[in-house]
Amino acid sequence: MVERRLSGLLVMHPANWYYLSGFSGEAGALLMLRRGPVLVTDGRFTAQARGETSGIRVAAQKGSLTVSVGAWLETQRRSRIGFDASQLTVAQLRALRAAAGRKIRWIAASGAVEALRARKEPQEIAQMRKAGVLAGEVLAAALKLLKPGVRELEIAAEIEYQMRQRGASGRAFETIVAFGERSAYPHARPTAKRLRKNELVVLDLGAILGHYCSDITRTVFVGRAPARIRRWYRAVQDAQSAAIAAVKAGVRCGDVDAAARQILTGHGLDRYFIHSTGHGLGLEVHEDPRVARGQKQILVPGNVITIEPGVYIPGVGGIRIEDDVAVRADRTEVLTRVPRDLIEI
Amino acid sequence: MVERRLSGLLVMHPANWYYLSGFSGEAGALLMLRRGPVLVTDGRFTAQARGETSGIRVAAQKGSLTVSVGAWLETQRRSRIGFDASQLTVAQLRALRAAAGRKIRWIAASGAVEALRARKEPQEIAQMRKAGVLAGEVLAAALKLLKPGVRELEIAAEIEYQMRQRGASGRAFETIVAFGERSAYPHARPTAKRLRKNELVVLDLGAILGHYCSDITRTVFVGRAPARIRRWYRAVQDAQSAAIAAVKAGVRCGDVDAAARQILTGHGLDRYFIHSTGHGLGLEVHEDPRVARGQKQILVPGNVITIEPGVYIPGVGGIRIEDDVAVRADRTEVLTRVPRDLIEI
Repeated sequence: MVERRLSGLLVMHPANWYYLSGFSGEAGALLMLRRGPVLVTDGRFTAQARGETSGIRVAAQKGSLTVSVGAWLETQRRSRIGFDASQLTVAQLRALRAAAGRKIRWIAASGAVEALRARKEPQEIAQMRKAGVLAGEVLAAALKLLKPGVRELEIAAEIEYQMRQRGASGRAFETIVAFGERSAYPHARPTAKRLRKNELVVLDLGAILGHYCSDITRTVFVGRAPARIRRWYRAVQDAQSAAIAAVKAGVRCGDVDAAARQILTGHGLDRYFIHSTGHGLGLEVHEDPRVARGQKQILVPGNVITIEPGVYIPGVGGIRIEDDVAVRADRTEVLTRVPRDLIEI
Repeated sequence: MVERRLSGLLVMHPANWYYLSGFSGEAGALLMLRRGPVLVTDGRFTAQARGETSGIRVAAQKGSLTVSVGAWLETQRRSRIGFDASQLTVAQLRALRAAAGRKIRWIAASGAVEALRARKEPQEIAQMRKAGVLAGEVLAAALKLLKPGVRELEIAAEIEYQMRQRGASGRAFETIVAFGERSAYPHARPTAKRLRKNELVVLDLGAILGHYCSDITRTVFVGRAPARIRRWYRAVQDAQSAAIAAVKAGVRCGDVDAAARQILTGHGLDRYFIHSTGHGLGLEVHEDPRVARGQKQILVPGNVITIEPGVYIPGVGGIRIEDDVAVRADRTEVLTRVPRDLIEI
């Protein structure tokens, strides 16, 4: 705030206000003012907000959220208030401008809280380690249920049930269970399709534990995998190992992506690698930093990212291997410690 | 589009593009142009988009989504493109303006698709009826598990497991299972708290079935409810009945809200009714129309709304009863047909 000469910052994104205040409700706005923070939320959440925060003034919303925040600012002195242009909608900014009046200047200050969130504290990494262990346990439980005849939806239901039974508050994203040709869709939704012999299976799951996300993918072959599947799998596995080996404080994210891509190019598979190598992980399943082609952002201690190269052969299936990796000052820690070899069942 | 003299409409919200195109992917942008629709999406979703849509040009994204849409428009003639100000972020609009160039004028056209979505076709209501029946079945299954000693999280896990086993693609929102004093938080998240005798329980759950949401709440007392709980319950039940009776094509949403609020005021409980009476329901769990105090919007055939009055007594607990109601030309149909009396277990 000092750097950008702001007298305040408006935080409208749940993960950001949770990070700054501990308030886990779904609706509200946090105003970080120099005199102290104010959390505006509606009647459903005011008691919860008072219980979850300390040192924060909780103000009950009157009318719409933006009008309420604007009216609150209108009573303040002339000031520059930062907002996140990538989270505030055009309509919200219009409503805020109208309600707050001319004394308030609105300054686009995108990514300020996200930048803080991207550098995890040791206790945050400890929590993510627990979320990673939980994901590995759930994956192991799901593998036992993979038998010909079972449906994608049943496995997805079991996975999410197991997460909750182990203390997760929920899934970090819609669980992917993709059999056969459907595994060639990187984001396939589970369907009523039944598992058959000699099919690939992609399982991509993540849990939210103590507010932090995990995200893991493994690929299974039902039966004895033919030579070309083994070859593709080995290429993806090597690509993932190369990318994990490249992760280090001081390295560019784009160079981590390139490490995976280069291996796949060497196997003539780069055109089947149709997404980026990974993404930041934390309170949200996609956050800073992005690990994509050409990304110039430098990894720093505290970053937690996924490394998840894959190949997707239309009409055949997909292969993806994903782990969560924490960048520490002295080393790289893989948070999801589960064997990475091809699983044949 | 004709009414607003638009040559195109940019649709950036997943539920809206699904409604218009059938594409169920998570990332993309649909451009409704007079010459025909164009769906821009990235490599993860292009195959899926081609499979799920017909009569739509699927264009692969290059670079960021907004830059890709903007560049696509830059090649077009001078035109007025509508966008939804309540869904587009300030940063997205800036990026679109920069990429599309000066030939394109950007016109705020909020709520255009939402207005279409709010008037459900008979086949949509039929799907929502199925989602409502499913929610009722899951609720009945959950009630059987409510025994002293069970944890909120276990019940929530069972509820979501049962949804998936019955064919739901997932929950429509984070399931609420709140025991005792915690039920006084209308949006309580399930915790490790164990159920005790003589506590209130609020169960609020909804499933997504064939893309459409359901949303139902029932309140349980563990043991024989004391007189004051019965009195409060009866007041909420009467408030819900009055609001459902008020639902009719041609009636203002605010009048439906007032019907519930008036009954609770008659019992001196209006100050404990800290949210609005209901909300539209469909592809999303909260959509048009809102059923809140003073809302002037008129109900029309095809609207589907929740009716969910409640009272929340700090330190004691909460009572809420919620059903999904479809406005039809000739009658009002309750989609969640489950008994509404106080459940004592």
